[in-house]
Amino acid sequence: MVTRPSLPGLLAAVWIAAAPWVAPRRAAAQSPQFFLVVHGGAGTIRRADMTPSQDSAYRATLALAIRTGYDVLRADGAALDAVIATITVLEDSPLFNAGRGAVLTDAGTVELDAAVMDGTALRAGAVAGVKHIKNPIQLARLVMERSPHVLLAGDGAEAFARQQGMALVPQSYFVTERRRRELERARAREPQPHGGGTVGAVALDRQGRMAAGTSTGGLTNKHWGRIGDSPIVGAGTYANATCAVSGTGTGEYFIRNVVAYDICARVRYTGVSLAQAADTVVLHELVAQGGDGGVIALDRAGHFAMPFNTEGMYRGYVGPDGKIVVKIYRDE
Amino acid sequence: MVTRPSLPGLLAAVWIAAAPWVAPRRAAAQSPQFFLVVHGGAGTIRRADMTPSQDSAYRATLALAIRTGYDVLRADGAALDAVIATITVLEDSPLFNAGRGAVLTDAGTVELDAAVMDGTALRAGAVAGVKHIKNPIQLARLVMERSPHVLLAGDGAEAFARQQGMALVPQSYFVTERRRRELERARAREPQPHGGGTVGAVALDRQGRMAAGTSTGGLTNKHWGRIGDSPIVGAGTYANATCAVSGTGTGEYFIRNVVAYDICARVRYTGVSLAQAADTVVLHELVAQGGDGGVIALDRAGHFAMPFNTEGMYRGYVGPDGKIVVKIYRDE
Repeated sequence: MVTRPSLPGLLAAVWIAAAPWVAPRRAAAQSPQFFLVVHGGAGTIRRADMTPSQDSAYRATLALAIRTGYDVLRADGAALDAVIATITVLEDSPLFNAGRGAVLTDAGTVELDAAVMDGTALRAGAVAGVKHIKNPIQLARLVMERSPHVLLAGDGAEAFARQQGMALVPQSYFVTERRRRELERARAREPQPHGGGTVGAVALDRQGRMAAGTSTGGLTNKHWGRIGDSPIVGAGTYANATCAVSGTGTGEYFIRNVVAYDICARVRYTGVSLAQAADTVVLHELVAQGGDGGVIALDRAGHFAMPFNTEGMYRGYVGPDGKIVVKIYRDE
Repeated sequence: MVTRPSLPGLLAAVWIAAAPWVAPRRAAAQSPQFFLVVHGGAGTIRRADMTPSQDSAYRATLALAIRTGYDVLRADGAALDAVIATITVLEDSPLFNAGRGAVLTDAGTVELDAAVMDGTALRAGAVAGVKHIKNPIQLARLVMERSPHVLLAGDGAEAFARQQGMALVPQSYFVTERRRRELERARAREPQPHGGGTVGAVALDRQGRMAAGTSTGGLTNKHWGRIGDSPIVGAGTYANATCAVSGTGTGEYFIRNVVAYDICARVRYTGVSLAQAADTVVLHELVAQGGDGGVIALDRAGHFAMPFNTEGMYRGYVGPDGKIVVKIYRDE
């Protein structure tokens, strides 16, 4: 799909692509493509349970997030920057289980996890159990770029954030009425709307660099300092030079199956397509074990897959043509 | 079994050829064999830096740990039980960086991480940043068996421990004079004895079940709530039905390379031997990136590998003949 041009060829292609008199579509075929794929969580997400205004709100926010990442990629920005920009929009929205609007722990508080991985350099950063970080995905990036570590947890991660000059926010910033009601229902052992809501993005930029990121509030009513798969490199988040994956679902299954890395390993070691690898892991391996969820996966040729074994997954993508596609239910 | 002409490969070939269980393999096919492989950390471990009494103390403790696991396996016990019993001995010894005698954080405290994985059922449990758990490997097992989660952190993990009736111990139990001096040297930015000391075990029992476990105090002078690879399933610890791995080294490299799972994935997907897979990951992939450390790896046929790219690794093994082998330096 994408041929590797020589450096002079690449520069020429970029110059041609930037030239206003060339039809953009033809130029895109000459220069490396870029892609962005996004998810907003998988779960029991049914058309029948959603009001038209809820449906539109989710679609509009996903489209805004995708557009934000697209703008980075179109301007020759890095896949890593596109992933961070996209996830920041979803963290800032109260609709998703990440950042503002994250689900509540058994103590009625918010504890956030996030990870980002720069596939080209095989660098990664992650935070777990942070309570006062407005955009955990941005702190994960700081861990990657400004600490010698990959994973920082709890108060220590927030001490690092302060040292880096990041402003902390009060817990009240995150807490929404909707999540309070969900916690009450969980405490009363009433059935929960399994809305998913973990967010993630994978991107390929014009220079062929890949990145993946994931951000979540974890489980409603969670306790014991539970950490799920999102901040675990290889489980909920993984990227290397040719493959990027972000997952959402019952995190324990994603950890035990090393889901994100396994998809990339199958492609690398067995030669199956990215779609085959992602389908096998999500629709067969996880299902056989009772694990719910889905992934978004992208390879360096711009092939992508968005398999899920639940009733729905908030998801979408955009390529160099700028056409943003957003889907929610299984039948679309 | 080992075809690579590298020095470690040649050494491995020599000791595998000399191993007493190679000849009776036919008999073993009738009654499944059992194996236990153990490590006590990799690092700048040099014969010249060790007094004879230190050398003997390490060898005696490793032999005791191996014997403890061997007794479980010989009595038809489970690989999981053998791994837990073995690691408990090493956690209880002040010599290793796990349990009592763990290294100190920048606050002069001990923060412990551990993980265990039962390969047959693909179950796992892990704890990170616990401060009052005498045997973190045993708490990791409780997380696996009595919680719906895989990874619990900090105070939450200790609340779970209390709920399970586990006695907590004061920090003073863990702190040794040796680690106090190491922390002072680290604070003064003086060169550290890189003694490694993370402990781990992998086992195969007579029923063909496999398990892996790892326990550590992490890094001297660590801060920001850093979590390393030991409690991360796929990074420092992994087991499935046919392959078990425990790692030790610069944890961030093990996380980014998903080291433990990658070794098993290479065996499963590419058909290379366990020794080839472990050597490739530890002696080539990690070395190319500057990652120090080693692994112990075991497969269901009883083949094992103990590659490391440092000056030494505390290590040893035992098979059904009961002959316990312990090694420390590279030249043995």
